[in-house]
Amino acid sequence: MHQWQEKTRPVRLERRFEFETYEGTRDFLDQLGQLSESMQRFPDISFGKTYANLTLMPEGEGENAEITNDDHLFASKVDEIC
Amino acid sequence: MHQWQEKTRPVRLERRFEFETYEGTRDFLDQLGQLSESMQRFPDISFGKTYANLTLMPEGEGENAEITNDDHLFASKVDEIC
Repeated sequence: MHQWQEKTRPVRLERRFEFETYEGTRDFLDQLGQLSESMQRFPDISFGKTYANLTLMPEGEGENAEITNDDHLFASKVDEIC
Repeated sequence: MHQWQEKTRPVRLERRFEFETYEGTRDFLDQLGQLSESMQRFPDISFGKTYANLTLMPEGEGENAEITNDDHLFASKVDEIC
């Protein structure tokens, strides 16, 4: 079971999601796309046939950007998808 | 204008696609998903709001894998999407 991890340089949240099938991966990405549009947050996503890695950067600029409650809220809504 | 680039270690084809809007990115990914299912080829894809990077590995295993006509055919069909 993977969880969100807070990383530095740059500050970001990351989580890996794994799926049984390509269809499962696509369903997740479709719902994530709707969530992104409704919350206007667009994480960087890497995916293949049965996985997706999300990287969420805080909206603040520069080296002093910090993970905010908004970031954690978005992450928790992504968790609700799967 | 970006083109497919053949890279080594591991052997692979890579191309970056850029879009004006998130909707354009999503449309591309949706059509790419249909192409992947119909050809049973699943490249690794990294994308954000207005870009997508594709990495296509040849289907052969190991260090001696080589880019084949099938790989170039899939790449050319991806090019037809955008």
